[in-house]
Amino acid sequence: MHEEGSVGIVETKQFTFGAPPNEMELDCGRRLGPITLAYETYGELNADRSNAILIVHALSGDAHAAGYHTGADLKPGWWDMMIGPGKGFDTRKYCVICSNVLGGCKGSTGPSSIDPQTGKPYGLRFPIITIGDMVRAQKQLIEHLGIEQLLCVAGGSMGGMQTLEWMTRYPDMVRAAIVIASTPVLSPQALAFDAVGRHAIQADAAFENGDYYDKASPDTGLAIARMLGHITYLSDQSMRIKFGRTLRGQDTYSYDFKSEFSVETYLDYQGEQFVNRFDANSYLYITKAINYFDIAAPYGSLDEAMARVKAKTMVLSYSSDWLYPPYQSQLIVDALLRQKKDVTYNNIQSDYGHDAFLLEKKIMTKLLSGFIDHAYDEQRVYRTEPIDTNSDTDIGPPASSNDSIYEGHRIDYDLIVDLVPEGSRALDIGCGDGELLHKLIARKRVNGMGIELSQGNAISCVRRGISVVQADVDKGLSAIPDKSYDYVILSMTLQVIEKPGFVLAEMLRAGKKCIISFPNFGYWKVRAKTMLLGKAPVTRSLPFAWHTSPNRHVLSIKDFRDYCASHDIAIELELALAGRGPVRACPNLLADEALFVIRSGRA
Amino acid sequence: MHEEGSVGIVETKQFTFGAPPNEMELDCGRRLGPITLAYETYGELNADRSNAILIVHALSGDAHAAGYHTGADLKPGWWDMMIGPGKGFDTRKYCVICSNVLGGCKGSTGPSSIDPQTGKPYGLRFPIITIGDMVRAQKQLIEHLGIEQLLCVAGGSMGGMQTLEWMTRYPDMVRAAIVIASTPVLSPQALAFDAVGRHAIQADAAFENGDYYDKASPDTGLAIARMLGHITYLSDQSMRIKFGRTLRGQDTYSYDFKSEFSVETYLDYQGEQFVNRFDANSYLYITKAINYFDIAAPYGSLDEAMARVKAKTMVLSYSSDWLYPPYQSQLIVDALLRQKKDVTYNNIQSDYGHDAFLLEKKIMTKLLSGFIDHAYDEQRVYRTEPIDTNSDTDIGPPASSNDSIYEGHRIDYDLIVDLVPEGSRALDIGCGDGELLHKLIARKRVNGMGIELSQGNAISCVRRGISVVQADVDKGLSAIPDKSYDYVILSMTLQVIEKPGFVLAEMLRAGKKCIISFPNFGYWKVRAKTMLLGKAPVTRSLPFAWHTSPNRHVLSIKDFRDYCASHDIAIELELALAGRGPVRACPNLLADEALFVIRSGRA
Repeated sequence: MHEEGSVGIVETKQFTFGAPPNEMELDCGRRLGPITLAYETYGELNADRSNAILIVHALSGDAHAAGYHTGADLKPGWWDMMIGPGKGFDTRKYCVICSNVLGGCKGSTGPSSIDPQTGKPYGLRFPIITIGDMVRAQKQLIEHLGIEQLLCVAGGSMGGMQTLEWMTRYPDMVRAAIVIASTPVLSPQALAFDAVGRHAIQADAAFENGDYYDKASPDTGLAIARMLGHITYLSDQSMRIKFGRTLRGQDTYSYDFKSEFSVETYLDYQGEQFVNRFDANSYLYITKAINYFDIAAPYGSLDEAMARVKAKTMVLSYSSDWLYPPYQSQLIVDALLRQKKDVTYNNIQSDYGHDAFLLEKKIMTKLLSGFIDHAYDEQRVYRTEPIDTNSDTDIGPPASSNDSIYEGHRIDYDLIVDLVPEGSRALDIGCGDGELLHKLIARKRVNGMGIELSQGNAISCVRRGISVVQADVDKGLSAIPDKSYDYVILSMTLQVIEKPGFVLAEMLRAGKKCIISFPNFGYWKVRAKTMLLGKAPVTRSLPFAWHTSPNRHVLSIKDFRDYCASHDIAIELELALAGRGPVRACPNLLADEALFVIRSGRA
Repeated sequence: MHEEGSVGIVETKQFTFGAPPNEMELDCGRRLGPITLAYETYGELNADRSNAILIVHALSGDAHAAGYHTGADLKPGWWDMMIGPGKGFDTRKYCVICSNVLGGCKGSTGPSSIDPQTGKPYGLRFPIITIGDMVRAQKQLIEHLGIEQLLCVAGGSMGGMQTLEWMTRYPDMVRAAIVIASTPVLSPQALAFDAVGRHAIQADAAFENGDYYDKASPDTGLAIARMLGHITYLSDQSMRIKFGRTLRGQDTYSYDFKSEFSVETYLDYQGEQFVNRFDANSYLYITKAINYFDIAAPYGSLDEAMARVKAKTMVLSYSSDWLYPPYQSQLIVDALLRQKKDVTYNNIQSDYGHDAFLLEKKIMTKLLSGFIDHAYDEQRVYRTEPIDTNSDTDIGPPASSNDSIYEGHRIDYDLIVDLVPEGSRALDIGCGDGELLHKLIARKRVNGMGIELSQGNAISCVRRGISVVQADVDKGLSAIPDKSYDYVILSMTLQVIEKPGFVLAEMLRAGKKCIISFPNFGYWKVRAKTMLLGKAPVTRSLPFAWHTSPNRHVLSIKDFRDYCASHDIAIELELALAGRGPVRACPNLLADEALFVIRSGRA
């Protein structure tokens, strides 16, 4: 019996299309047909076929993403962790589809398939395929299943590349997209590793220019390629944790060239296992497709590619992934932001390297289910749901000290909600767990996005249905186009950021108007404590001792007014707050908080 | 003709020892002899043989480190950049020696040498050698040259490993050591790459279990191993800069499996060139020696190994080196610090990856020459020399904003120099360019070390002859043993660090006494400006506007006194300073700077 949460026994199906003379045209200019795609489905398609999720696999994956083929199977499908009842892709609500890629060797047409023209395996006579070709073939399958629009396309690594192709090639067919541990274009470093792997296969004496199907296969070369690939899927950290320098079955060095370190015998084992389940020619073709991947190429630039996207997109990267490092995911996110698309980005803290997308179950379950549930039910965000902050406390590193500067009711939130007009576009910088944005969306139907540094907070935002980009605002908002938001909001955060002048300038560039609130250093209690006691002040809105304060900058209402005057910033509104209400006379003296609405240009 | 700064035409010499029955005993337990080492020397040994620098090479290096063998040579020796008149290792002053390692194939005894017992090349009958064996053989050469103590041993990568072996095996023979881009123990990731490279060689049909010397050699396998190694020597950044995704000699994809990207043809070329100059068996033996390297193993722990060191040591790493990442150099530095050794550490900002030690000429010239000149002439540090700060401005990233908070004369420096007794051990945290430490060393013969975050400042310290560890003090001083310094100094820095409470606790742990100076927030001008103007104060010692201030924490003399009282810190001395002199009455009101001498425990 298999565990709870499993989709149980599943079967691989096949779909064939493109029989001559209707062969598929490939990017290389050649035609290929007939083409068979192996695929599996988990969960039921609903009546209007609006709940289909397409899972796209990585280099060595296949159609068998979840469940078991027989009761005797020891291992489930490759992404069983995420697919099943109650899992990240919840098969109680959604119909999950996964197909083996064109060029593969697990039931889909590839170089090991019989070439109908010769009656023999294609071998290297198989045409070079691209990620685009893989996706074009998948589209045939999706249409065959009667699905006009996919609720979601999701995949990691090469799966992320296919997702990007889906988003840009067939924008109307994708409502939501999840691009995991991927890149807009393969880096020369990753390309070089693939090239060395291919060399190892081609150098194997058994390779025989790809025509090895009736003889011994080039197992040694393929095993070497796999061993090399495997190193790039792990991280330095995870290898130290997993293997260290342990010897396998011996206490002392053997002083010969046999594999003796655990990491060596592990890689040997990975190589041996792989040659039993994978075809060397498919390895050549699929790595070549990855090497050719450059989502910008067909459209002229990454921005022009991303301009085509209509899907609500979530991009995920992993801090220790050095094969597809986080900065490559960031390139996708930045291009989507420049094109004013709806994007969420999380860089997940993980030691697992590139393989993290197959391992970080807890965080990914929260992110994927939160994102998909809100994509499926767009009204869900308007229903106020309490955030399960308690259950989130075990996720990732603790939120930084400035996440909870102000406990309890935030007096500036209600004021900000009152100030922002119905239906505005609003960007909340340092949005925390999304409380303010959620109020703005629920009460003013605002089109809102947040920027937040803390992983825990960003996850809370996703679960609330709020688009959030995990970023350090001190590094700027350069991807946000000029005047692309009606309001950019910085609520009680100005005093903790490193470069407030830079951030203010960026906010004024990105927003037509900006709303800023901060604790007032000019407050009489602050002044009196400073004057009379000669000590750094501690008050309700400046509640920290000098040595524990996250506040990097102290400023008063007067300081901020002077700053605006000397930086060509017009003040549209100034509200001074004390306790729970506004202050009319002597605001710099009597207010402990201040809220300004400003814009660039003189008053 | 060769360029200025070249050592010109040089020749490789040979030294043979260990003829039977006096063979060398190896770590593997076998005996080997006779052993020949190929070596070169550049510059003249002085009369007392105190100016010899031994250069130890990396995996594919050899004895030919500098100059040219003939006037027709197109390329000089492998570290010509650093060795020559006026270079980092200045051959006008020093005698530089480099020898090919035991197990190599460039003139030293290795697997391609003739086994005197069989009259045929050793092949795999050559014994497994270790880094320790390489160094034991080098010691024979150094003694043969009549050198009792080396001024310096220096090397990068595997050369760093040999340097560590020299420092621990023969501590009396090494006055100074430079460990570059290295590690105390090879990581499982680096080990895995080597294992895959060896697999590729051993899988080559021409390998024939190592007996290929009278036939075709396993060039394909060796080329694959080299290509793989080469990727690990570069960085993701440097590959993007150098290759990008450029195609070689074509504009469009060729849609076949030929090498077409520039990065592919470059690696192909590197592989082809390498097989012409390197022996596949030597590659196996040398990588195996690297894989076995663990400097802690013979002594029980890294700390016990480093406890043996008598050399003044400089450790260098490169920010983008992912094969021997900076944290591995940091392990060496931390162990030396725990053992109270004289160590300097710089993590050089570079995009070049592991290969940076062969490329970062400018910074390394400054660091190596500064370090060696002071190691050679220990009195040099007492001669006040102006720091060439102007010429340093082109090095590395600009110093951070808090490097120059106080321009002109620092009133606290003279006070601190007065306070610290002759010959004390002193640690200066945030030591800047070493001005205070230099005063302490010159005027009080203090045994001093600095901790500094900025690369430019750390280089200035090295050129002044001051030991400095490049580190972020907010991450702690955990490697500094309890009470290992008489004085730990934090001069006008408390207000800019992130976690002052943590740093103070670490200082009090590491130092018998601590000297702290900071700007006084209780100063009357600060209070008056706050009280009367209601603005964040700007004064001589708090000279920044609220939005540009690097000061994260404002505190007054009273605040600091209260902090000490509530944290079991005894105040031994409190000096309040205004303008250029001390303040006697009402210090919190009248002083704009404060200086405290404190220690743990109640007063």
